[in-house]
Amino acid sequence: MADTELALLTATQAAAEIARGAISAEDYSRACLKQIAEIDKKIHAFVHLDPEHVLTQARALDERKASGQALGPLHGVPVAIKDIFDTADYPTECGSPILTGRRPYRDATAVARLRAAGAVIIGKTVTTEFAYFHPGPTRNPHDLERTPGGSSSGSAAAIAAGMVPLAIGSQTNGSMIRPAAFCGVFGVKPSHGLISRTGAVTLSRKLDHVGAFARSLSDLGLILDVLAGHDPQDADTRPVASPNFRAFAGEKPPLPPRFAFVRTPIWEKADPATREAFDQIAAHLDEACFTLDLPESFAGAWDAQRVIMAADMAHNLGPVVERGGEAGSSKTLRDFLAEGREVKATRYLGAIEEARALATTLADVFNHCHAIITPATIGVAPKGLQATGNPAFCSLWTLTGLPALSLPLLTGEGGLPLGLQLVGAPGDDARLLRTANWLVEKLGKGAGRRRAKG
Amino acid sequence: MADTELALLTATQAAAEIARGAISAEDYSRACLKQIAEIDKKIHAFVHLDPEHVLTQARALDERKASGQALGPLHGVPVAIKDIFDTADYPTECGSPILTGRRPYRDATAVARLRAAGAVIIGKTVTTEFAYFHPGPTRNPHDLERTPGGSSSGSAAAIAAGMVPLAIGSQTNGSMIRPAAFCGVFGVKPSHGLISRTGAVTLSRKLDHVGAFARSLSDLGLILDVLAGHDPQDADTRPVASPNFRAFAGEKPPLPPRFAFVRTPIWEKADPATREAFDQIAAHLDEACFTLDLPESFAGAWDAQRVIMAADMAHNLGPVVERGGEAGSSKTLRDFLAEGREVKATRYLGAIEEARALATTLADVFNHCHAIITPATIGVAPKGLQATGNPAFCSLWTLTGLPALSLPLLTGEGGLPLGLQLVGAPGDDARLLRTANWLVEKLGKGAGRRRAKG
Repeated sequence: MADTELALLTATQAAAEIARGAISAEDYSRACLKQIAEIDKKIHAFVHLDPEHVLTQARALDERKASGQALGPLHGVPVAIKDIFDTADYPTECGSPILTGRRPYRDATAVARLRAAGAVIIGKTVTTEFAYFHPGPTRNPHDLERTPGGSSSGSAAAIAAGMVPLAIGSQTNGSMIRPAAFCGVFGVKPSHGLISRTGAVTLSRKLDHVGAFARSLSDLGLILDVLAGHDPQDADTRPVASPNFRAFAGEKPPLPPRFAFVRTPIWEKADPATREAFDQIAAHLDEACFTLDLPESFAGAWDAQRVIMAADMAHNLGPVVERGGEAGSSKTLRDFLAEGREVKATRYLGAIEEARALATTLADVFNHCHAIITPATIGVAPKGLQATGNPAFCSLWTLTGLPALSLPLLTGEGGLPLGLQLVGAPGDDARLLRTANWLVEKLGKGAGRRRAKG
Repeated sequence: MADTELALLTATQAAAEIARGAISAEDYSRACLKQIAEIDKKIHAFVHLDPEHVLTQARALDERKASGQALGPLHGVPVAIKDIFDTADYPTECGSPILTGRRPYRDATAVARLRAAGAVIIGKTVTTEFAYFHPGPTRNPHDLERTPGGSSSGSAAAIAAGMVPLAIGSQTNGSMIRPAAFCGVFGVKPSHGLISRTGAVTLSRKLDHVGAFARSLSDLGLILDVLAGHDPQDADTRPVASPNFRAFAGEKPPLPPRFAFVRTPIWEKADPATREAFDQIAAHLDEACFTLDLPESFAGAWDAQRVIMAADMAHNLGPVVERGGEAGSSKTLRDFLAEGREVKATRYLGAIEEARALATTLADVFNHCHAIITPATIGVAPKGLQATGNPAFCSLWTLTGLPALSLPLLTGEGGLPLGLQLVGAPGDDARLLRTANWLVEKLGKGAGRRRAKG
C-alpha cells in the first residue's frame, strides 16, 4: 500500500491490518508522519510532535506483537491528543503562554487508557486558549482562510486533513461538535461522565466532556470502547459496565429508528441555508421524523450554561490566569472570568437545578424517538481565524449532558461541510451510534453528501 | 412488666421481647404513649401525635406476627420522627408557620425504611424553624429552664425523657450532636451519604445528614442497619453494601483502639470546665490517646461551613420563605438567607473545594488512630429557651462529612450532661460504633458518669 493510502485507512481498518501482520505499526506511523510533514505546514493542527518519539513507540509495539503478547484494540493506531490533556512524554500547555513548557509527570486518564490499548500517542494538537474562545493558529483544511472551529481545533483539522485516523478533544460548550461540523468529520461528545476528565484542564465539572473525532462511526465506537469507564478520581463517572460500542454501533436496529427534529429556541440564529437544509432532511425522512417544539422553559438554557461556565471557570482558572498578568492571557478570557466572579451562588445553584430539570424533560423525549436531529452549527465555518464560530447549537446538549454526534452528511455554502447533529438519550451512547449508522446509510446512499442552498 | 419498665427498654431489648412474644407491639406502644401523656405536657417534644393511629399500627404489626409472617428488625418498636421528614400519615410542617397543615403524599425514604422494618411511626417531633436556629417549644428534660439544643430538639428530648427508644433527626451544622449532648443521650451523625435524605427538607445537599438518637450504642447500630443504604434519588448515597452495624458495634476490637484528642482551632470557645474535663479524659486514656493539633488550614473551616450553608439555604429555602412574608418567618432565618443571597459563586465553589481538601487531610489522621475525641459542645445546655446553643464543635465534622457520635459519658455544671464527641474515618461508621463501645466500657466502668468541674 502507498503511504497516502495507508494514511487514509480508518482506525478500524488499520488496527485490523496491523493485527493480522499485513502492515507494521512503524509503517503506519511513518505514513501518518509523512502526511503531517507535507500538510501541517499549512494547517497547523499540531503544537507538539516528535517524529522520533512516535517511531520509538511504534517499534516498541511491533516488538510487543513479534514477541506474541496480547494486543490492545488500538495496537499501532496513532491518536492525536488535544493539548489540554496531560501527557508524560509531551508538554501540555493548554494553548496558554502562562503554561509554556509545562511538562506533566503523568498521562491524563484518557491518554493512559489509549496507551494501554496500544495506541501511538502521536502528538498534541492545537487548542484555543484554555479551551475557551481565543483561537490558536489552526486553519480549516477545507478552506485555509476559515476557522476550523474551536476549542478542539487541531484535533478536528488533523482528522479532516488525513493526518491521523483518531483524535481526542473536549467540549464545555461547543468545542467538539462545532469543529467536527466545520471540518466535516465524525465527532462525538458522549454522555456527561462517560469518559474520565482526570488529568485534563478543568473548566467546569458540570460541563466538561471528553470526546473524539474520527473518519467513521465505527472508529468512534472503537475509541469509545477504550475511553469509556469508571474513574474513582472523576466523581462524575459511574461504576457501571460499558457496552461494546463498536459492535453495538454496527448492528441493525430491530425497528427503523424514529427521529425528533428539534429546531430549539435559537432556530432564528441559524442562517437561511442551514434552516432550509434541515427542513429538507426532516421532510425527506417523512414518517421516520416528527417535529418537536421544546417547552418555553428551554429558553433559559443558554443563560444557565453561560452562568455555570463563567462561575466555574472563574473558580478553576481565575487564580492561574491572574498570576499570568495581562500579557499572559487574552482580553476575551479575562472578561469572561471577570463576569464569572460576579455570579451569585444562588444564581449558580439555580442554573445547576435548571440544567437538571431540562435534562429530565429531555429524557422523556426519548420515550417517543431514538434520537433528536438538530443543526450542529448556525452554518458553515465562517471566514477568518480571529474567532472560532458560534457554539449556540451545542450549548443545550452540553448543559444537559446528553450524548451528541456531528455527522458530515450535509454540504453548505461554497461546498463547505455542514454538520448534522444527532442527540441521544442520557447514557445511551451506543444506541446513538447505531441510530447514526442507520441515518448515514439512509441519507448517504444515492444522495451522496446533501447540498444545502446558499 | 410495669408500663414504666416497658417504656425504658432499649430498642434492642424491646424488639427481642416482641419477637419472642413476651410482649405485644400494642402493649409496648401503649407504655410509650402513657409516658408521653404524662411527661410531654412539660417537655413539648412532640408536635404531631395520634394515639389511636399509633395503636392501629401496633395492632396491625401484632396481627402480622400472629399470622406467622416474617418480622423486620424493628418490629413493634416506636420511632419518633423529626418534623422535617415527610410522613404520609402525619403532617410535616418543618417548624414553620408557612407550612402549617402541610400533608405530604408519601413517606421520606428514611421513614419508609423504618416502616418497612416494622417500626411504629409514633409521631413527629419538634424541630427549630426549617431546622435552622429559631427554636420550638421543647424543653430540656434535665432542666426545664434550659434548651434541649437544636434543631432536632424534640427527638433528643423524647429519648432523654424516656418517651421512646428511638428517634431520627438531621444535622446541617450541629443539629444532632448538640441536642444529643445537651440531653445526655446517644446520638449519631453518620458519614455524609450513608442515609438518604429524599423526602426531608433540603437545606444543603453538601451539609445535610440524617441521624438518630437512642439509649444505647447497640440501638444506634440497630437503626443504622435499617436506615443506611443507596437511594438513586439521593445522589450522595452510594451503591455499596452496608456492614451489619449492630453486630459489628458489639464486637471486641482486635487491638485496643487509639484515640487522637483534637482540641480544634476553636478550643478557647469551650468553657473552662469543658476544657478541663477533656484534658482529664485524654490524660486518663494515657497511652491510648495522643493530642493532635490540626494544621492552620483548618482555621477557615467555620467560615466555609457558613458560606455553603447560607448560599444553599438561600437557594433551597429562599423562595418559600419569601412567599411567607415577614409574618411567616423569624428574623434570624431571613437574615441568614439574605447573607446567603450575597455569596459569590466563586466563594461558594472555593468553600466546597476547601471542605474536600480538609476531608482529605482528616482521612489521613485515621491512619494513626481509630477515632478523634473532641467536645460535642462548648459546655452544658445553656439557660433559656430563646436559643439552642453553640454548634461550633460540630461544624468541622459536618463540613467534612465524617461520622460523629455524641456519648453521654460526662457530667458538667449542675450535674447536667456533657457530650463526648467521637469522630471516625469517612464511611467507617460501623468501626466508630465498635470503638465507642470500647470507650464506654473503659470510661463507664468504675467511674460512672465522669464529672467535670464547674
